[in-house]
Amino acid sequence: MFKTLTAKAAASLDQELMSTGAFSIDQLMELAGLAVAQSVFIQYPPTPQDQILVLVGPGNNGGDGLVAARHLKLWNYNPVVYFPKKPSKPLFHNLMVQLKDLEVKEIQSLDEAKTMMTKSKVIIDGLFGFSFKPPIRSPFDELISYMAENTTKIAPIVSIDIPSGWDVDSGPLSDTPDIKPTMLVSLTAPKPCSAHFSGVHFLGGRFINNKIAEKYGIKDLIDSYRGNDMVVKL
Amino acid sequence: MFKTLTAKAAASLDQELMSTGAFSIDQLMELAGLAVAQSVFIQYPPTPQDQILVLVGPGNNGGDGLVAARHLKLWNYNPVVYFPKKPSKPLFHNLMVQLKDLEVKEIQSLDEAKTMMTKSKVIIDGLFGFSFKPPIRSPFDELISYMAENTTKIAPIVSIDIPSGWDVDSGPLSDTPDIKPTMLVSLTAPKPCSAHFSGVHFLGGRFINNKIAEKYGIKDLIDSYRGNDMVVKL
Repeated sequence: MFKTLTAKAAASLDQELMSTGAFSIDQLMELAGLAVAQSVFIQYPPTPQDQILVLVGPGNNGGDGLVAARHLKLWNYNPVVYFPKKPSKPLFHNLMVQLKDLEVKEIQSLDEAKTMMTKSKVIIDGLFGFSFKPPIRSPFDELISYMAENTTKIAPIVSIDIPSGWDVDSGPLSDTPDIKPTMLVSLTAPKPCSAHFSGVHFLGGRFINNKIAEKYGIKDLIDSYRGNDMVVKL
Repeated sequence: MFKTLTAKAAASLDQELMSTGAFSIDQLMELAGLAVAQSVFIQYPPTPQDQILVLVGPGNNGGDGLVAARHLKLWNYNPVVYFPKKPSKPLFHNLMVQLKDLEVKEIQSLDEAKTMMTKSKVIIDGLFGFSFKPPIRSPFDELISYMAENTTKIAPIVSIDIPSGWDVDSGPLSDTPDIKPTMLVSLTAPKPCSAHFSGVHFLGGRFINNKIAEKYGIKDLIDSYRGNDMVVKL
């Protein structure tokens, strides 16, 4: 098994990258979203205009999803995005302008999202990231319950960093719906909940220096990237 | 031949991306620098710790070089950077912190840079971009003259967007030293001066939507990218 980063350690590493590490959120999100898109490309290569549904949450996980949608559109997929609840942050607004200019559509209702889940090749789950703490609040609860109850009917789910609804440290919760993703793209390093995940597992976010890697005990992980790859299958 | 963008058109497109296009300079620079690094990786694949000298100018071209240096370091090259004249912009400062944390060294003198030019596998020329207007001013003139006079002694030069010292629209100037790059990485679209370039030519900067591509007449160019590639050899 590989080393994982607890919710607390992940938050601390992120904070370190953006303070003393001098990375901007735009940079990190661009590289994280690109890694998600590349993992999807490798695992689910496109036939032209394959539909992809990107579920966008209120935090950085959602922003990673928006960046991934942009790259996937440029790579001949047909992504659509759905926000159960629209964040008002300028960064999200800007990422959405970029997508609109690329003619990426935004879905407006849960019903449309449900239809799209069946019609899509892949569902990218960018709802919650390592800052998530249960319970799942409205309006996310209805969406996540639907996904958990319709696993066999809907497209395979690719979760960004955390299967949304899982506890970051302890994994799926008995009193919370489990969306059962088929693929997970861990960013920087897997979180402890990934021990409960048995599908296809990618690692992305290749921007960690040796000092930080050693401090957080993830040197073996960052040494596993090959050549100029932005992602590695774990 | 492919369509090119004049200095004026390139400036206008860039301005459009960052205003109505809602891209941040951090995002565009990250993608541009990554494209430069990937072109170098394809054309000059690394044997471990190959030295690369990155020459960093005062504008965005220099910033692209700094981002490229970061990725190349993570891909097992050993880049060093040299600023003939250090810009004081926060973005440059931040990119330099990221490089220092990766143990990328900064060279402090022209003499060191000259030695490094001979010892390196590749020299990345990030001195001037599409905003350059001759003449070449101090302290860049001495560096560029040295490079022009020592083509056979120094490593091959990879120019970012513009061979530094060339006029963006008309190419090499009779009264200005010519650094004779062996490779050119055009960003967004080649500039008219590239018609005078006969080496290996890559295109990078895969973030243009169809509307902008059509407006600037570069749709054929952006359609030439394949799969999930961030660069294409022209």
